[in-house]
Amino acid sequence: MRILYHLPLSPFSRKVRVVLSEKRLPFELRLEKVWQRRPEYLALNPAGTVPTLIEPDEMVIADSGVICEYLEEAYPDLPLIGRTAAEHIEVRRLVAWFDGKFAQEVTRNLLGEKFMKRLAGRGEPDALALRAGYANLRQHMEYLGWLAETRKWIAGETISLADFAAAGHISALDFAGDIDWSVSGSAREWYARMKSRPSFRPVLADRVPGVTPPAHYADLDF
Amino acid sequence: MRILYHLPLSPFSRKVRVVLSEKRLPFELRLEKVWQRRPEYLALNPAGTVPTLIEPDEMVIADSGVICEYLEEAYPDLPLIGRTAAEHIEVRRLVAWFDGKFAQEVTRNLLGEKFMKRLAGRGEPDALALRAGYANLRQHMEYLGWLAETRKWIAGETISLADFAAAGHISALDFAGDIDWSVSGSAREWYARMKSRPSFRPVLADRVPGVTPPAHYADLDF
Repeated sequence: MRILYHLPLSPFSRKVRVVLSEKRLPFELRLEKVWQRRPEYLALNPAGTVPTLIEPDEMVIADSGVICEYLEEAYPDLPLIGRTAAEHIEVRRLVAWFDGKFAQEVTRNLLGEKFMKRLAGRGEPDALALRAGYANLRQHMEYLGWLAETRKWIAGETISLADFAAAGHISALDFAGDIDWSVSGSAREWYARMKSRPSFRPVLADRVPGVTPPAHYADLDF
Repeated sequence: MRILYHLPLSPFSRKVRVVLSEKRLPFELRLEKVWQRRPEYLALNPAGTVPTLIEPDEMVIADSGVICEYLEEAYPDLPLIGRTAAEHIEVRRLVAWFDGKFAQEVTRNLLGEKFMKRLAGRGEPDALALRAGYANLRQHMEYLGWLAETRKWIAGETISLADFAAAGHISALDFAGDIDWSVSGSAREWYARMKSRPSFRPVLADRVPGVTPPAHYADLDF
């Protein structure tokens, strides 16, 4: 059986779960509390991050970016990184945007400070980081809105890994009540389409002890 | 002509310069002072980072990871991401290690605090960040040493993008005098081999106003 080590609030885990479902690859989820730094897990993935994928042939693949490139090569029937060189470039640029820039400027400052820091026993959220995170989030929501307004899906004509990367971050932040949906109607309409995909439903059904998501979180017509 | 927008101390720019040279693709360098946020440059690369590559057919490729995947697809004669699925996974894992984890835990805390912060007018280096950067660097040098000791090149039998990603960070830190070469003899021996490659010489010849690299920096037998 294919196994995916994950955390429910990890945007990177969410992206890979949705990609596996879109490619119709069955898998079993295993919760990995990365802050415990289990030696058996570090042997699989020395970076100690989630997700890590174990293929049915026992191949181990760490890092969500590496996993998605691997899945694209191994299971190319439903291409998610585009077909032409120009499509590859735009999909990967936006994946790097959300998993690099957005992750650093927003996710790390909000979910990182509010949840991961406490779980790792590194103290209370830093007020300056939270303020920076919310300010950056607003700008990013405007950019996401612009992409959603000018294109069918955010990287172009077809749904792609860029949509799943963006939705991984947005959905985790929405779970924490951090998304102001009044900023961009186009972003909201794009996210409603993402939420309605069958691949996304199990992600929206996840719950985390001690956190109650807002009422609209799993609502498809929010 | 192919154009690469870069900064001399950017590890990501260094990696792409070396990859272009290894693949024997001629290019012209353009210095981009990203902290000036030139509107013409932001139109090419909205993330405002270096490097950005402009191909002879005027295709624009932003983000060093996206550029390297593009170059591998467009110019596959000399493969730098490996040939088998297992090789792809290990090369990309280590690229993600250096350009993700190492960059965040070390480069950002040292070069980011000492140079980029001042250039961007965001004040003086933070003492806590510097201390964390040096402590993390020591652990990373031990890991690099272990890779160099147990393998011919860091991802396996052949030189790969993983070596160029690692050397991009190590060389930029070495320029600033931040590398303690006594930590690992194997890491040092690996880096001497990297320095002796013709693709690496132009990178080592770069100078930055106001910074004098240590005497061993461009010395092949350091």
